[in-house]
Amino acid sequence: MQQTPGGGGEGVRSVLRALDLLALFDETHRSRTVRELIDATGLPKSTVVRLVATLEQRGLLWTRADGRLAPGAGMLRWAQLAQDAWQLPAEAVECLRSLSEESGGESSRIYVRQGVSRLCVAQHEGTQQLRHVVRIGEAMPLWAGASGHVLLAGSPPEDVRAAAAAAGRGPDFGPVLAERVRRAEEQGWAVSHGEREDGVSAVAAPVTDATGRVAAAVGLGGPTSRFTRERVEGFLPVVLKVAEQLSKLQFIGGRP
Amino acid sequence: MQQTPGGGGEGVRSVLRALDLLALFDETHRSRTVRELIDATGLPKSTVVRLVATLEQRGLLWTRADGRLAPGAGMLRWAQLAQDAWQLPAEAVECLRSLSEESGGESSRIYVRQGVSRLCVAQHEGTQQLRHVVRIGEAMPLWAGASGHVLLAGSPPEDVRAAAAAAGRGPDFGPVLAERVRRAEEQGWAVSHGEREDGVSAVAAPVTDATGRVAAAVGLGGPTSRFTRERVEGFLPVVLKVAEQLSKLQFIGGRP
Repeated sequence: MQQTPGGGGEGVRSVLRALDLLALFDETHRSRTVRELIDATGLPKSTVVRLVATLEQRGLLWTRADGRLAPGAGMLRWAQLAQDAWQLPAEAVECLRSLSEESGGESSRIYVRQGVSRLCVAQHEGTQQLRHVVRIGEAMPLWAGASGHVLLAGSPPEDVRAAAAAAGRGPDFGPVLAERVRRAEEQGWAVSHGEREDGVSAVAAPVTDATGRVAAAVGLGGPTSRFTRERVEGFLPVVLKVAEQLSKLQFIGGRP
Repeated sequence: MQQTPGGGGEGVRSVLRALDLLALFDETHRSRTVRELIDATGLPKSTVVRLVATLEQRGLLWTRADGRLAPGAGMLRWAQLAQDAWQLPAEAVECLRSLSEESGGESSRIYVRQGVSRLCVAQHEGTQQLRHVVRIGEAMPLWAGASGHVLLAGSPPEDVRAAAAAAGRGPDFGPVLAERVRRAEEQGWAVSHGEREDGVSAVAAPVTDATGRVAAAVGLGGPTSRFTRERVEGFLPVVLKVAEQLSKLQFIGGRP
């Protein structure tokens, strides 16, 4: 990383640490103590206290009456912003709903790429009792899963290498991922079984932008036990149809 | 600021700068160029580029197909978190609605304190054509407006001094604010006219937690032309009644 006057690497590191602290709050950890943050990050207490104070100052954390830290009201502003930018047009919502319905009740979702991660930006939860649900906006690895392969399709080889390196699975994994991406490119869709999580399968196809580049991936996710060869063959035409419909809507990337 | 190994002041500064960059995106600026960010912050290009890259890495910013920066999908996760933590119980939503209705259609809202700021966490928009609307989660000065005085009620004098200092109105403002806060404490409510914004008035009363401390302020805001002495006298009993109802609900500060 290039160093510039005014602190390069150190500043970036602090920003990443602050964002990582915020990432420790989720549905199962709605509040945390400073001690928990120290244990979870392995950072020195002084660093955590300083970052917490900075985040509190901007309203992103909040000390509750019981002394525990929780997401601050300042996040509400971001909530508004993010939802404005990423809210799907009604037609796209309908696409996801019908994809889920026509698959017999699997969860349908749209992912976008962010560096070596993929983020789910929209989901229609399946109706099956055993269903696969992901968190909206949470970073998931780009190297794993059908939607990851689809999102990497058409990318320069160095992007695929970076995604493979992030997997931490050694040098042999690079060619493995490159081959999966190549196949997704060739077929125009991808299927995966248990790549990120044991027992979870997915089917995905690319949503393209006006220039024909992959802007997002749309697909289905569910238990491997229900993603048999036969059922996947049934899912594919529906996934491809919805991918085409979404591509025509040209909504990925936010409104002007 | 205390310096510690691993970078104190520099790190904090970078975190604040990163958050300030994000704050430049709002309803009227849904996307920005790097140039705009440089101009708006006065920071060197290298610093802005580095911060943007860091925020993109975590999905908080996103480069759209047209090359402009926009809020990233990673913010969606925060949206979920913030709304989980701050969503009002149905009874509280109903309180705000009835307050707005009984005031003849002024906007009602709940503010919490965050350092020397106050943040609106909930709002019921008035029905009048000329109505006062604030942004949810946006930091507003604690020194100005009826809800600011109410939020400072019962605070140690150094908090009032810090809030006054943040106003940047010189040393004479300290005692002025202290007197306003004292009056809010004594009366159990506050009224303000044009303190933060010309032509805007407000009435507010405290929402207390289980220990009797001020946890939030609830009140009405609207054009000064409609906040005459007579109408404000009519608003007060309703504001006080709703403040009492909200205090009983004990919801401020998020669910466990």
